[in-house]
Amino acid sequence: MPDISQAPKTFPAPKDQSLRDLADCIRFLSMDAVQQAKSGHPGMPMGMADIAAVLFSEFLKFDAADPYWFDRDRFVISNGHGSMLLYSLLYLTGYKDMTIDQIKRFRQIDSRTAGHPEYRHATGIETTTGPLGQGIANSVGLALGERIMNASFGDNLVNHHTYVFLGDGCLMEGISHEAISLAGHLKLGKLIAFWDDNSISIDGATSLAESDDHPARFRAANWHVQQIDGHDTDAIRAAIIEAQKVTDRPSMIACKTIIGFGFPTRAGTQKAHSDAPGEDEIAGARKILGWTSPPFEIPEALLNDWRKIGAKGGPARMAWAVRVQTASPDKRDDFERRMNGELPSGWRAAIAAAKQELSGSEKDLATRQASGIVLNHLFDAIPELLGGSADLTPSNNTKAKNQVEIKPGEYGGSYLHYGVREHGMAATMNGLALHGGLIPYGGTFLTFSDYCRPAIRLAAIMEVRSIFVMTHDSIGLGEDGPTHQPIEHLSALRAIPQLAVYRPGDPIETAECWEAIMDAPRQAALIALSRQPMPLLRGDPSDENRSARGAYVLQEAEGGARQLTILASGSELHLAVEARSVLQDEGIRTAVVSMPCRLLFEKQDAAYKKSVLGASRARVAVEAAVQDSWDRYLGLDGVFVGMHEFGASGKIDDVYKKFDITTDAVIRAGREVAGESKPSVASRSP
Amino acid sequence: MPDISQAPKTFPAPKDQSLRDLADCIRFLSMDAVQQAKSGHPGMPMGMADIAAVLFSEFLKFDAADPYWFDRDRFVISNGHGSMLLYSLLYLTGYKDMTIDQIKRFRQIDSRTAGHPEYRHATGIETTTGPLGQGIANSVGLALGERIMNASFGDNLVNHHTYVFLGDGCLMEGISHEAISLAGHLKLGKLIAFWDDNSISIDGATSLAESDDHPARFRAANWHVQQIDGHDTDAIRAAIIEAQKVTDRPSMIACKTIIGFGFPTRAGTQKAHSDAPGEDEIAGARKILGWTSPPFEIPEALLNDWRKIGAKGGPARMAWAVRVQTASPDKRDDFERRMNGELPSGWRAAIAAAKQELSGSEKDLATRQASGIVLNHLFDAIPELLGGSADLTPSNNTKAKNQVEIKPGEYGGSYLHYGVREHGMAATMNGLALHGGLIPYGGTFLTFSDYCRPAIRLAAIMEVRSIFVMTHDSIGLGEDGPTHQPIEHLSALRAIPQLAVYRPGDPIETAECWEAIMDAPRQAALIALSRQPMPLLRGDPSDENRSARGAYVLQEAEGGARQLTILASGSELHLAVEARSVLQDEGIRTAVVSMPCRLLFEKQDAAYKKSVLGASRARVAVEAAVQDSWDRYLGLDGVFVGMHEFGASGKIDDVYKKFDITTDAVIRAGREVAGESKPSVASRSP
Repeated sequence: MPDISQAPKTFPAPKDQSLRDLADCIRFLSMDAVQQAKSGHPGMPMGMADIAAVLFSEFLKFDAADPYWFDRDRFVISNGHGSMLLYSLLYLTGYKDMTIDQIKRFRQIDSRTAGHPEYRHATGIETTTGPLGQGIANSVGLALGERIMNASFGDNLVNHHTYVFLGDGCLMEGISHEAISLAGHLKLGKLIAFWDDNSISIDGATSLAESDDHPARFRAANWHVQQIDGHDTDAIRAAIIEAQKVTDRPSMIACKTIIGFGFPTRAGTQKAHSDAPGEDEIAGARKILGWTSPPFEIPEALLNDWRKIGAKGGPARMAWAVRVQTASPDKRDDFERRMNGELPSGWRAAIAAAKQELSGSEKDLATRQASGIVLNHLFDAIPELLGGSADLTPSNNTKAKNQVEIKPGEYGGSYLHYGVREHGMAATMNGLALHGGLIPYGGTFLTFSDYCRPAIRLAAIMEVRSIFVMTHDSIGLGEDGPTHQPIEHLSALRAIPQLAVYRPGDPIETAECWEAIMDAPRQAALIALSRQPMPLLRGDPSDENRSARGAYVLQEAEGGARQLTILASGSELHLAVEARSVLQDEGIRTAVVSMPCRLLFEKQDAAYKKSVLGASRARVAVEAAVQDSWDRYLGLDGVFVGMHEFGASGKIDDVYKKFDITTDAVIRAGREVAGESKPSVASRSP
Repeated sequence: MPDISQAPKTFPAPKDQSLRDLADCIRFLSMDAVQQAKSGHPGMPMGMADIAAVLFSEFLKFDAADPYWFDRDRFVISNGHGSMLLYSLLYLTGYKDMTIDQIKRFRQIDSRTAGHPEYRHATGIETTTGPLGQGIANSVGLALGERIMNASFGDNLVNHHTYVFLGDGCLMEGISHEAISLAGHLKLGKLIAFWDDNSISIDGATSLAESDDHPARFRAANWHVQQIDGHDTDAIRAAIIEAQKVTDRPSMIACKTIIGFGFPTRAGTQKAHSDAPGEDEIAGARKILGWTSPPFEIPEALLNDWRKIGAKGGPARMAWAVRVQTASPDKRDDFERRMNGELPSGWRAAIAAAKQELSGSEKDLATRQASGIVLNHLFDAIPELLGGSADLTPSNNTKAKNQVEIKPGEYGGSYLHYGVREHGMAATMNGLALHGGLIPYGGTFLTFSDYCRPAIRLAAIMEVRSIFVMTHDSIGLGEDGPTHQPIEHLSALRAIPQLAVYRPGDPIETAECWEAIMDAPRQAALIALSRQPMPLLRGDPSDENRSARGAYVLQEAEGGARQLTILASGSELHLAVEARSVLQDEGIRTAVVSMPCRLLFEKQDAAYKKSVLGASRARVAVEAAVQDSWDRYLGLDGVFVGMHEFGASGKIDDVYKKFDITTDAVIRAGREVAGESKPSVASRSP
């Protein structure tokens, strides 16, 4: 690795010593914490400290005493490896849970100060960042959420900025393109991004890998762009004032900075990016910056200044609270309900009405169609439902009939054309969910869950209710062929901890799954829906929500103790039902278990689980996908009917036949495991 | 959905009737095929037909009689839903396997003409496209591969262009940013892209979702940009000539086109994008374009013209073959070897030397370090190994000590700084592998396999040897915390059909896995490697390659028949070994099975599998990840020691302890399943 040294000979003198002092508090806390942890990333906090000092002391609307103040400005570090910048700011401004002890325990087990900022680990962390580019896309959602809530509730109640720090890595990631393109299109004037233009990444100078003119790129996406010296506090102030004035475009402020500002030898080089700097480097920085306090100690006067900054938003917050209380009662109640994440009282009746409509359908419906019908009812009852699709609206059935489109500069609607930007959509949805007051759902094909998987994972980690609506959920999509047919996706998604993957098996189950989603405000959810129609298997719309337990006995064995259990989900559930009928006639006492959501089933108590799965080890599972997520129920004796390879292009029926996912295959498998014929070695696990 | 009609009143008259006639052959074959299939996408082929006619008749270097001619120009449609454009061209120019019958069987089961172009389904399909944006990134790899091979073998043997068609959707996808940024940085002057600027996507006008100035965006990424009327054949010709002249930048030609050019009512609207147009629309197009042939029939004169185009490259190909034969024998042999994908004779000795070095190490090595040592040896033996990393070179240990970096305009090296562009890297690697003559591998952290998963999937579908080197493969990465700790990734990756996921358990296994990768030219591979050191468990470097069978008995039970089997992989393998020692002492006859690659194990015969897994159902699996991919071996009686939730930030040992993935936990699990203590309900599958 060549040593691409850009170490400055000297550091620029401060324009304003008091701001430099504030910034140095961040620098030394960051250095000390990384050094103590022997792990972490000092370069970014030291490079962006001056920007943070100006932003927090002069612009950011917040009150450390009330981290959840709804109308606070949102502050995100997309370059999340610089977590010590954020933790320093939270400690300095006086967030109660961010103590100096937490700073000292940076990156230690069970501290609040994880290596990267983790949402819910401490107050003031607006989102989980670290995987690069996610934060800028979350910020688009936060800024969009603000505008949408503003359109409903007005400037008096909702009127704040979203500020985001981002690094070279964020800008190299593809998701940054999707995010900035969407933000520019939607004219999110209250979104202000600060690019830490330090020309360094882990491998060395960014010039090793890129030559982009990022300011030109942002202008091409309809952003307002300024370029400044990121250590010149006058320039930082002026740029923020200018950016705030621009209301029809998001703003990007390219801040030329020195990574590891203050380090005597590492500053300006990739060595400043990560790892403990060592005592010598810290000693040098102390000398250069004139810092005399012991490690982890902030001079009292400076800490007082910072604490005042943390408290200065108090009056504004109280004035806002008065405005909320003096708003018209209807508006106030609605606003408070939405801030608190409570659903309007009529929503469960909407589910009932949807079930009624679905059970009355004269023709078979695809679950994506059923979902569309549910959404028609739900949206009328829950106005905070915010729909969208990554350019597959007519296929995903995501647009409720009364939803109005959001357009650039017009935020009064409830439906977004996200464009062909699955990753940007999912991360924007996370930002919308994090903002509060909105329940985002967005559609694409299930196979493209791969395109947005990093953001789906973050929804699960953060436990926010982003609802991913994924249609065309198997080889049943037919002619589009192998690239468009999800095979491994259901198992791969079910493997993500804390993600509820629903795959309803008929229209009524579809409504039940939506009900379960709406019942769980802290549950990231994905609902997999079929392209092709399927029969109604649950006739009674007044039935309890059986899908909410994850799995249930759809049909119990008849004529005595259960001999065989067929497990199924989604569009294969009716194959199980048809096979059971034949097997029962043959004298094999067979139950059908529908499992629309493995995660919810795993949460049930042992007795319930046992009652569903039955005592017999003769089990068959059928799903037009790989078997991995079913293996734990099949055991060594079960047989799986499903996919063992990639799909094929052809008519739906031809494709199912080609891969032998048919009623007949389920019957054969049932006979085999129930002992009616000898097990064949080929189809069994060893 | 609003009907955003941009239907033109009239279509522009042809500049050159004979070129228009050639283009109309594509248009009507595409219309007829989509209509017959009642499925597909006619809009793109009809819109881009004029561009294709000029490109194929006047510029593209190819010979339909020899689709594998190494020095052919590469032609990719990144907007793969327009597959009928490609199939039409292959049929018209006379590729032997693309018969009119195949065109008639478009999108039918087991035809060569799948919904989207599938590599290996027919000759002339350079890559599998459909998931948007992949094709442009593959093209970057194809164009880069050409330059790298050119640097080794000179203009006489390697000197061709890469042409790629792409659509609005490709440009919205984030991967397009990574791809064009990398291509611009690397100055890939022989890459020429045609943007089908038709302003339409599935939801309607692209203005619903984007406002980007794409030409400005490409310029910001150092591309040469032209903007033309995509139906003006003179302009198309002039633009290609100009683009070819620019050698220090890739070229983008923005072609303003009318989607569904020729349709009387659907042209210029989203209705032209997909679905069968209907007989009326086709009849109208016939009238407008003056087409009188029956469906699927091309007038003889036109077919002759097209067949001449398909054959015109013959003399150039033969001249090239002569140049190959008359090259210096060393060069020729090396070139032919690399074209044929054969490895140099010395490579297996390099593996042996690596094993020797690894087994002699005085300290424990992380498998990422072991991998780095293997690569040092392998690269010296296999010069076509082309390394790289997505800005994690020092962490991934991907740069062999003798590898020289590739730089903008300097292609004589063997190592790429891909930047923080995991998705672009993986798709570029696929293009490099498809080009031939090179074996690409590239590194990132395992958790970021999510960022490039769509391209990993395509490597598996296409069965090309892209080698994904994924380090920091568990909670063992420690302090970076939940976002950076892969939990579900191993199971999620193993679920992908045809992808060999390796996770070696010690340095010797690491060498064995690399050997298995090098032995399988048509196998997409991912190797998961630890951050943390682990003991050497396989002392004898002269041992046969046991990892090549996917799983094997590392230690058999002693003292009688096996009672208990512990399965493990990677950094947890030594926990199994330590636990076995205790359990054997306690009188539980215990075997340890190492399973570095499930896919390879599943391919073994039943007898081998049985011998490895043993007859006893008392099984424990240990892996610092979720259990899903182990469930099929655990059955209903086994116990899993591993992760059941997201990870945590902390020191490695603290993290392992927190989640109880320890030798002691394996011992407890072993006692439990071997019947020494009563099974606890909580830790068992129901």
